[in-house]
Amino acid sequence: MRITVLAGGIGGARFLLGLRELGHDVTVVGNTGDDVTMYGLRICPDLDTVVYTLGGGISNERGWGRENETFRVRDELAAYAEKSSSGSEPSWFGLGDLDIATHLLRTQGLRDGLPLSEVTRRLCQRWRPGVTVLPATDDPVETHVTLTDGRTVHFQEWWVRLHAAVPATRIELTGAAAATPAPGVLDALAAADVVILPPSNPVVSIGAILAVPGIAAALRSTDAPVIGLSPIVGGAPVRGMADACLAAIGVETTAYAVANHYGRRPAGLLDGWLVDDVDKDAADRLTEEGLPTRAVPLLMTDIEATAAMARAALDLATEVRR
Amino acid sequence: MRITVLAGGIGGARFLLGLRELGHDVTVVGNTGDDVTMYGLRICPDLDTVVYTLGGGISNERGWGRENETFRVRDELAAYAEKSSSGSEPSWFGLGDLDIATHLLRTQGLRDGLPLSEVTRRLCQRWRPGVTVLPATDDPVETHVTLTDGRTVHFQEWWVRLHAAVPATRIELTGAAAATPAPGVLDALAAADVVILPPSNPVVSIGAILAVPGIAAALRSTDAPVIGLSPIVGGAPVRGMADACLAAIGVETTAYAVANHYGRRPAGLLDGWLVDDVDKDAADRLTEEGLPTRAVPLLMTDIEATAAMARAALDLATEVRR
Repeated sequence: MRITVLAGGIGGARFLLGLRELGHDVTVVGNTGDDVTMYGLRICPDLDTVVYTLGGGISNERGWGRENETFRVRDELAAYAEKSSSGSEPSWFGLGDLDIATHLLRTQGLRDGLPLSEVTRRLCQRWRPGVTVLPATDDPVETHVTLTDGRTVHFQEWWVRLHAAVPATRIELTGAAAATPAPGVLDALAAADVVILPPSNPVVSIGAILAVPGIAAALRSTDAPVIGLSPIVGGAPVRGMADACLAAIGVETTAYAVANHYGRRPAGLLDGWLVDDVDKDAADRLTEEGLPTRAVPLLMTDIEATAAMARAALDLATEVRR
Repeated sequence: MRITVLAGGIGGARFLLGLRELGHDVTVVGNTGDDVTMYGLRICPDLDTVVYTLGGGISNERGWGRENETFRVRDELAAYAEKSSSGSEPSWFGLGDLDIATHLLRTQGLRDGLPLSEVTRRLCQRWRPGVTVLPATDDPVETHVTLTDGRTVHFQEWWVRLHAAVPATRIELTGAAAATPAPGVLDALAAADVVILPPSNPVVSIGAILAVPGIAAALRSTDAPVIGLSPIVGGAPVRGMADACLAAIGVETTAYAVANHYGRRPAGLLDGWLVDDVDKDAADRLTEEGLPTRAVPLLMTDIEATAAMARAALDLATEVRR
């Protein structure tokens, strides 16, 4: 079975670990909306999180970056910043030494004229994630966030440095209008047997992928059922700060509201929706309103629990396909 | 007293440590001929060796790179190279983690449009070398070496990877013809009270500096005496593989031959020459032939010995100025 998954960082990557257990042919359309350039290095945090996680190189403790990581380069950059006017980049970004090797190779490949999708393919030759990883787009896009204090900052600054503590009034994917889906993305959506929106951030992860012109339309027109898994459990994000992102776009932090934000096909994107057992009421209400929704355990506590979630998504896909 | 020194890597840097002890106003014209780009990082080995040495950050054991260095990024790049087609750069180059911070800042500065001289000035804000460090040129130059087997390789490949074991038939500074001296270089030579050629490699260090159009002419026309120190002691280089470089340009590996290679002003470059005590015969012969030459201890065993060498150079300058 061919399964295409739109994925952000940690949430998407961990879901993919479970899905991979089921032995299908999986293509990942990865978010590039939180990409950033630091010290001249092009960094794709979500793609790296997916590849490191599936390749066994992720720090499970942090959920991003490499295990057994060190930060010698970052600390040295900070020593320069303290005493000289070289380098104006921030030091709050977690630029690990092992990670830098990835960024150097990516940056070099991009400078040599390779598209991000080809660079990603080459990086995957080492990590062998067991799935095909495609960036949503080869075109450079970056998420910028306008804060209530009037500043507009890069998503990473809001997220990593400010911990999303200053509320956002606007979240915009710069460059999206001119972007086109990377090679293979539209095909992967059109030819899929099932499309899954895993419990990734609906705004800055799934939302950023959908902001690339053509991708949302491909979801609406694919013959495959599109099944989503709620990233909100009991009124709060399972991890991360999706609530801050949802607030910025005026969506409540509930499994019910996120389902309505995605919407039901063909006007919207979903054919089915999974919520956690604690949100059984939302499941009943959504099903009643016309979106087949099941309540199952949605906490990715271990790989078995995660594989069960993936199985539930495929079961729902079979059900709604009839 | 204003002293301008043309310097390569280790030999020049260690000499500068001794000279700095004498408390003069020192300007260094640093070699950029062995600069190289690896993984997209612009690396200036000789400038870094000078700055790290004078700034107290050098590995004294290796003579290049940082003390307490680690090689996490390099090893990770090698792990990628083994398993993927990303990155075609060699792994024999000693790319240390702390060093990479310097290279990242330099590369970023250059990409932002800053000239190398300004980037170097900013890096020196941190290291406070106690001397003014100018690159010979802001223009990118690279030394390429043609080997007896017909290959032409970057100097670093010949030097670091092949240990100069394959003889060279030609050493060329690519980009030199179009290069101009960096801001301040010609002034530093014209306004100096003494110009010193320290015991650096006469071909790929001093020679590469002199290959930048205008610099050799400035040495010939300065009112300051120009004093050189022989990098050859008793028929062998004090360190490094200068003999391999001298062989490539048809110069014998003797203190006498190197003096004649530089030549006597105004046709040549020197007003005076220092050789080691073991080369007393060469000193007598050169003096007899018209180049004032003194034999003194030329081994930079410690900072006092090195300061004594610098003092001997200044003494000879005073003598030949009369």
